[in-house]
Amino acid sequence: MKGKTIHDLNIGDEGVFQKTLTETDVYLFAGVSGDQNPAHINEAYAAGTRFKTRIAHGMLTASLVSAALGMALPGPGTIYLEQTLKFTAPTRIGDTVEAKVKVVEMLSEKNIVKLETTCTNQAGELLLKGTATVMPPK
Amino acid sequence: MKGKTIHDLNIGDEGVFQKTLTETDVYLFAGVSGDQNPAHINEAYAAGTRFKTRIAHGMLTASLVSAALGMALPGPGTIYLEQTLKFTAPTRIGDTVEAKVKVVEMLSEKNIVKLETTCTNQAGELLLKGTATVMPPK
Amino acid sequence: MKGKTIHDLNIGDEGVFQKTLTETDVYLFAGVSGDQNPAHINEAYAAGTRFKTRIAHGMLTASLVSAALGMALPGPGTIYLEQTLKFTAPTRIGDTVEAKVKVVEMLSEKNIVKLETTCTNQAGELLLKGTATVMPPK
Amino acid sequence: MKGKTIHDLNIGDEGVFQKTLTETDVYLFAGVSGDQNPAHINEAYAAGTRFKTRIAHGMLTASLVSAALGMALPGPGTIYLEQTLKFTAPTRIGDTVEAKVKVVEMLSEKNIVKLETTCTNQAGELLLKGTATVMPPK
Repeated sequence: MKGKTIHDLNIGDEGVFQKTLTETDVYLFAGVSGDQNPAHINEAYAAGTRFKTRIAHGMLTASLVSAALGMALPGPGTIYLEQTLKFTAPTRIGDTVEAKVKVVEMLSEKNIVKLETTCTNQAGELLLKGTATVMPPK
Repeated sequence: MKGKTIHDLNIGDEGVFQKTLTETDVYLFAGVSGDQNPAHINEAYAAGTRFKTRIAHGMLTASLVSAALGMALPGPGTIYLEQTLKFTAPTRIGDTVEAKVKVVEMLSEKNIVKLETTCTNQAGELLLKGTATVMPPK
Repeated sequence: MKGKTIHDLNIGDEGVFQKTLTETDVYLFAGVSGDQNPAHINEAYAAGTRFKTRIAHGMLTASLVSAALGMALPGPGTIYLEQTLKFTAPTRIGDTVEAKVKVVEMLSEKNIVKLETTCTNQAGELLLKGTATVMPPK
Repeated sequence: MKGKTIHDLNIGDEGVFQKTLTETDVYLFAGVSGDQNPAHINEAYAAGTRFKTRIAHGMLTASLVSAALGMALPGPGTIYLEQTLKFTAPTRIGDTVEAKVKVVEMLSEKNIVKLETTCTNQAGELLLKGTATVMPPK
């Protein structure tokens, strides 16, 4: 139940979390976040958008990055400091998303690690990219 | 059900979304995101952390920014392009969070708007700050 | 709102609970239990398993036995003492599961009842079998 | 995202999963399982029971064993074959439960592993004990 400390980490180390995002996830996320944007919860509206159907909230896709950091690398006990997010393609209901985090920089004296973060779908399409800054558990 | 187009927006315009984040929100978010980091779902563990109790996922706090963008300004139909997030203080269970978005830049020819985004708690403490880049509805 | 006491029960008495287990049930169960095993929440992964698709958690199927005991026989007020579970076939999303409990032994002086417990799907396939030991309400 | 194969396991190996079980968990479990026994969802009723308050479903506590098996040891890809459960004390809302699984027998030629499984609360009180039989991922 404890993640890796900075001494256990090396540049290039990777962690992943994968999940098929369902209608249930999108609706629960809409409820929890309060984001009732019709692009996410209104199929009649969404049919007329460029995406032709409801899509997942970008922040829902991004939340899988949080899972990869908190569950895989560095893992339990990690403190989230910063995240940049660029949403590059929509996540559709039923997509299986892989969130991958990869260590790219370590500031050992401050116990800070930077990771390249990406989400891709089952077709390998890039959904999201960015950088996370975290403090691994001590 | 349609938000503001770029022609309706001006530098300095603000939108807000407020919500008291409950244990239910944190637990549903843990399920949806897959992020079962003990900092969020293990009170016995969390009592020994610097925060002394379970805290909300940073991405859950950030999801209220998504709500402010998608519900208030620009509102329904907004497409999320980018977000930067700096988590500056923990959100505790029971905190009432105000997500505020403020137009700071408009690229009219590209239909792109940049907004300063902040989340504060009921005591006025800054929880999160960053910048959103969105396309308002046409 | 009160179940049967041991004096109301006879060997051979049966109770049932039936439910169609949906994707929503599986995803909520994954969140509540913390069990994010990809067999349950990752369709891309599950397509490569012997079951070809996501299956319900065995404990989710088993939880319908708890419902049959707590709602049907003996009913409200029942205290659960023991359960054995043998998972004999996977429960697929969309399966309608019947949990059946049948009294097979009564220890009246201790107020303890043993029941044979089974779960079957809409095709009559046995998903789970075992034995429950409970204290009926007094 | 892949658990340990039988070749990676040894007698005595342990895995744990910990979670504070909340009212949200109990209510979602009641909804998912259909087990609306008043002992779990009726505080007025529960105040008159031996436990004086609502308690978690035994199967909810047991579901954390499933998480320990599916997430920690053997981990992702594990197939659940059998489980015995003896409920030894009630789990109260707000209890932090540790599910621990420990390898006690290995049948390598059949790819079957038996694990002693226990759940304890934050006070170290034994809530549940039993034995799991699983097939680790190949």
